[in-house]
Amino acid sequence: MIRVGILGATGAVGQTFVRLLDGHPTFEVAALAASERSAGKPYREACNWTQDHPMPEAVRDLTVLACEPGAMDVDLVFSGLDASVAGDVEKAFARAGVPVVSNARNHRMDPDVPLLVPEINPDHLALVHRQDWGAEGGFIVTNPNCSTVGLVVALKPLHDAFGVEAAHVVTMQALSGAGYPGVPSLDALGNVVPHIGGEEDKLATEPRKILGTLSDGAIAPAEVTISAQCNRVPVIDGHTECVSVRLAGAPSAAEVERVLREWQSPLAGRDLPTAPERPLVVVDGTGPQPRRHVHLGGGMTVTVGQIQDCPVLGVKFVVLSHNTVRGAAGGALLNAELLVADGLVRQRAAA
Amino acid sequence: MIRVGILGATGAVGQTFVRLLDGHPTFEVAALAASERSAGKPYREACNWTQDHPMPEAVRDLTVLACEPGAMDVDLVFSGLDASVAGDVEKAFARAGVPVVSNARNHRMDPDVPLLVPEINPDHLALVHRQDWGAEGGFIVTNPNCSTVGLVVALKPLHDAFGVEAAHVVTMQALSGAGYPGVPSLDALGNVVPHIGGEEDKLATEPRKILGTLSDGAIAPAEVTISAQCNRVPVIDGHTECVSVRLAGAPSAAEVERVLREWQSPLAGRDLPTAPERPLVVVDGTGPQPRRHVHLGGGMTVTVGQIQDCPVLGVKFVVLSHNTVRGAAGGALLNAELLVADGLVRQRAAA
Amino acid sequence: MIRVGILGATGAVGQTFVRLLDGHPTFEVAALAASERSAGKPYREACNWTQDHPMPEAVRDLTVLACEPGAMDVDLVFSGLDASVAGDVEKAFARAGVPVVSNARNHRMDPDVPLLVPEINPDHLALVHRQDWGAEGGFIVTNPNCSTVGLVVALKPLHDAFGVEAAHVVTMQALSGAGYPGVPSLDALGNVVPHIGGEEDKLATEPRKILGTLSDGAIAPAEVTISAQCNRVPVIDGHTECVSVRLAGAPSAAEVERVLREWQSPLAGRDLPTAPERPLVVVDGTGPQPRRHVHLGGGMTVTVGQIQDCPVLGVKFVVLSHNTVRGAAGGALLNAELLVADGLVRQRAAA
Amino acid sequence: MIRVGILGATGAVGQTFVRLLDGHPTFEVAALAASERSAGKPYREACNWTQDHPMPEAVRDLTVLACEPGAMDVDLVFSGLDASVAGDVEKAFARAGVPVVSNARNHRMDPDVPLLVPEINPDHLALVHRQDWGAEGGFIVTNPNCSTVGLVVALKPLHDAFGVEAAHVVTMQALSGAGYPGVPSLDALGNVVPHIGGEEDKLATEPRKILGTLSDGAIAPAEVTISAQCNRVPVIDGHTECVSVRLAGAPSAAEVERVLREWQSPLAGRDLPTAPERPLVVVDGTGPQPRRHVHLGGGMTVTVGQIQDCPVLGVKFVVLSHNTVRGAAGGALLNAELLVADGLVRQRAAA
Repeated sequence: MIRVGILGATGAVGQTFVRLLDGHPTFEVAALAASERSAGKPYREACNWTQDHPMPEAVRDLTVLACEPGAMDVDLVFSGLDASVAGDVEKAFARAGVPVVSNARNHRMDPDVPLLVPEINPDHLALVHRQDWGAEGGFIVTNPNCSTVGLVVALKPLHDAFGVEAAHVVTMQALSGAGYPGVPSLDALGNVVPHIGGEEDKLATEPRKILGTLSDGAIAPAEVTISAQCNRVPVIDGHTECVSVRLAGAPSAAEVERVLREWQSPLAGRDLPTAPERPLVVVDGTGPQPRRHVHLGGGMTVTVGQIQDCPVLGVKFVVLSHNTVRGAAGGALLNAELLVADGLVRQRAAA
Repeated sequence: MIRVGILGATGAVGQTFVRLLDGHPTFEVAALAASERSAGKPYREACNWTQDHPMPEAVRDLTVLACEPGAMDVDLVFSGLDASVAGDVEKAFARAGVPVVSNARNHRMDPDVPLLVPEINPDHLALVHRQDWGAEGGFIVTNPNCSTVGLVVALKPLHDAFGVEAAHVVTMQALSGAGYPGVPSLDALGNVVPHIGGEEDKLATEPRKILGTLSDGAIAPAEVTISAQCNRVPVIDGHTECVSVRLAGAPSAAEVERVLREWQSPLAGRDLPTAPERPLVVVDGTGPQPRRHVHLGGGMTVTVGQIQDCPVLGVKFVVLSHNTVRGAAGGALLNAELLVADGLVRQRAAA
Repeated sequence: MIRVGILGATGAVGQTFVRLLDGHPTFEVAALAASERSAGKPYREACNWTQDHPMPEAVRDLTVLACEPGAMDVDLVFSGLDASVAGDVEKAFARAGVPVVSNARNHRMDPDVPLLVPEINPDHLALVHRQDWGAEGGFIVTNPNCSTVGLVVALKPLHDAFGVEAAHVVTMQALSGAGYPGVPSLDALGNVVPHIGGEEDKLATEPRKILGTLSDGAIAPAEVTISAQCNRVPVIDGHTECVSVRLAGAPSAAEVERVLREWQSPLAGRDLPTAPERPLVVVDGTGPQPRRHVHLGGGMTVTVGQIQDCPVLGVKFVVLSHNTVRGAAGGALLNAELLVADGLVRQRAAA
Repeated sequence: MIRVGILGATGAVGQTFVRLLDGHPTFEVAALAASERSAGKPYREACNWTQDHPMPEAVRDLTVLACEPGAMDVDLVFSGLDASVAGDVEKAFARAGVPVVSNARNHRMDPDVPLLVPEINPDHLALVHRQDWGAEGGFIVTNPNCSTVGLVVALKPLHDAFGVEAAHVVTMQALSGAGYPGVPSLDALGNVVPHIGGEEDKLATEPRKILGTLSDGAIAPAEVTISAQCNRVPVIDGHTECVSVRLAGAPSAAEVERVLREWQSPLAGRDLPTAPERPLVVVDGTGPQPRRHVHLGGGMTVTVGQIQDCPVLGVKFVVLSHNTVRGAAGGALLNAELLVADGLVRQRAAA
């Protein structure tokens, strides 16, 4: 077993890590760390558990540690830290020789840090060899923003088949994406908030890196122009995105649908525990809908539907992904599983 | 007082007519009509009242009539009929010499029927003189679909100032737009349904007629390419629309905002009771939001916000309008007020 | 005009005061006060306005003052202060000779402070003459907790007609009762929270004072045993309460319904601007429901329905009241109108 | 494997049977039956699947049959039929020698039909031997109404320890309890509906049978007076109930809590697949809440919290149960597992 720690273990993302790691075949939760306010308390007391499944027995009595490399005897850390502190803390762990699999935004756009979606750009993982933190074994790998991941999973097959020139995206994002306490209920119930700070920028930039090409050890961003309008809607889990794309060669909606249906994930056959059987599924009828499709593949499958010709840009469709699983802790977990499968994580000697 | 009848008075739109006409300075509800199932009953019994204000005393004891011209002694009818019957019933009233102000979709695209938004295309009202139903005084006037009206109010100033070449629209539409019983709660609560039958077509075609030019007694549609993706979200009242536009001359977001803020309604000074002081308001901050802005101007004001440059199409923004007021009964009521102000409705002799 | 100030003007209750006072025939908002953080700013900037109607023009540019008597030249203050500060601030105003009409809980149970619902215990107002703050004209009047007021309006006719021996109350309370930001959306959407801190105690004690008898200048509490279970439900405005009562003489549900329907408010004929025509209305069918009945009487009418025999306690029914209008700012406003009508507020000389 | 059929397989309860039976160790879905409208179609077409997990592959291509014993070659049927047809159809299967495990209300109060909750009254199963349908092996077993089951699981330990004399129950019931399409969203969103037809009667009568005593082959109902007020709230799954009880001997809340915490299910050690490890769990803090606790034990665990002294009746608490799992299909499934374990179901010869 690989012994893992969770940074920011009491927060919303940290709790999802705890839940998804419960019963994991490879990873064992050996340490939980959080802010000074929580450190020293048993997890069950430090944590305002807000998951809809009960707290795993195995972690209830773990003492919450400080987010310091010296305090944690682990082979790898998952970071669910808030961006206000993640940057420095993650660097400290990398410098101490600990692999950091982070969900925070701080290092995503660093040139040598992979912004990884295992089914989309597994080759970008090679970037970790360029990271030099001064300690053997230490590096940082990130997963994209929760609204980015559904988009890139849907765009990747189209980019390979045709070339995506431009994408216009309107998101309808779930409340859980704002963490806890997050959005006040008086702003959420029966309402749409057409503004999410910083989100439109992430959607415009992250896909360019993820869909980019690795050559000579650096990533050349994909030449895709992206415009995003981001909205918060009263949904618990599941980001829905209305996407219109301008593709090279102007294929029809039918051709686009065929490409999406026939796409094969490069992870097929690699048997990573969290990888869904099908990372991308085209649904019929009135889908995709959060209440119907967000749990597909354990929350790791991205669903697409409503594929139609768009008289303005060419083709349009709707994408749905689970923002706290595929778009956060589950995505990071899959990243870690790829790291292990690729031999980049080793069991470290006990302290 | 003008004596009005309401066709489809027990339905969701009909009830909104009843509510908005309560205490109206010009119109007096003289007759309520509905399907055979309701005819003969007092309104309070025939109607499953679902408005959030109580049923006006004045209509509680009115006997519901059949939807036949002979049965109703009125100067004008409002039609909140379902599209499955509206087409023929409305024709019958026009043939009997009764002005019909309809919210139904059936006659909207008829060449001689105005698709009217008083602040946008009041001149289109001249089309009624081309209608020949064989009886003096009878004609049909329609208002657009609930998702169209917010869009055209926002596009009109831009079309006049720059010329709108293309518009991409993603709607997040309220549940009340589907009538009653409408959307099952298990499909609505905590969900997004990315499909509304027929809606995307209406959004693509109706604005072209409304923004079109009347010349030689016919309307030349505006040359605007529109692509729409329509979603149902768990909001009671208020359609929110994310709009991106390609404008001639490629003005900046700042120029677009200035034009929207400075636009003057052609109704200004005409003192129609239902006309809001400002039909179009640009809001700051995190608006427009259904829970904050949908009641502006008694539900007749369209609000716009989030005006930004769009790297794909040029400029983008968010529009909000009240779908059952501005987008249905209130819009029709304003149409009728314009008809009266223009001398097109007269008090008919009692039967 | 009576010149009024609002303490805590930027909070949820304060904003409701501002909205309800807009266009009031007797009261003019002359001063807005809030915490030090807001003081000195124009109201439009200091306040995160969350009402569903726009901020009145008249207050947008008022400079927010500190909550100090010397800073405000007014004839009366409304207090929407948080309980953490209300106690001392309200005393300071009373000592300065300013009548305080408070929605805060701090002084509600003080022996000499009326806990006033004008239609229920207007005679309790006489208590103000027993208050001695050392300055002429200064006193404190309070209104009950938002969950108390609906209950006492329904119990009062029964207490007078039969005598209420015991009441069992289960509340389903709206989110707006928790203020802003209040309940996190992840706790509210699609959920019931069966605990509201301190609420059950208020419901058990406040009605005993309100239904109590004034004799020899003191209030003898009503001998009513009350048990409450309080729940938060995903409703914006409107507290629904399931009530079962044991009444002296064990009347039937039919008798109880007759008493409730025939009850006459002692305010009838006094023409207070905020008093609803009927403070208590019995509704038929599937009511009362927040979405159908909460706005009755401008939010000041309490509605009752589902009156049935209860095999355990005798009679049961359901009560609904608007928690931020009747249960907070509207209730306080009505209290102030009664004060003026009774000659207890005078126009003070300008400072 | 026991080969089972599902009656009413396309409805909401039927779909939940399909979902819960997917991968069951003992039961194999051999036949799906529904109304004439659906019969003859593949299940994937006949069924508007509304579960939040995808339709199991194994049933997608099954041809839907008519609800007739001759058409189905199975060892047992689950009935998710609507009450309008369940009565006669279930009798027909029993007469044909097929065990019927029904969720419908029709036969629940029949003297010889067990109204079974395996952890509460497993001995009542003996009633099946008194049923005489004229064919060997045929009988009917029912599970209680979705709002009854949580209540009886909480009352049983108290009834055994003290004796329950009276119970007052206020429910806050989930939308899924009304089936599909069920409650219109305009009645559900942001609303409470304080009326559910017939529900209060079921809550007043069913627990008396379930908590009753079997002697001389007949059930003597428990002498418990129950009063219920039933409300629909905007929750997807999970009925919350506020319960106050009068217990013989007037124990304190602390004694009640101890009894509930220490209660042992009579199923312990019997290893039924659907039986939760703990059918009754007392939760701390602000629970039980639908969004936090409804999935405990796979939806089969009933949770209790907020245990307090009640000045009116003695002790009060809050109960939560999953209405479509424990309160419907899951409860029936557990009933069937007990039938198999007790040797009451046999593999029938193929037709």
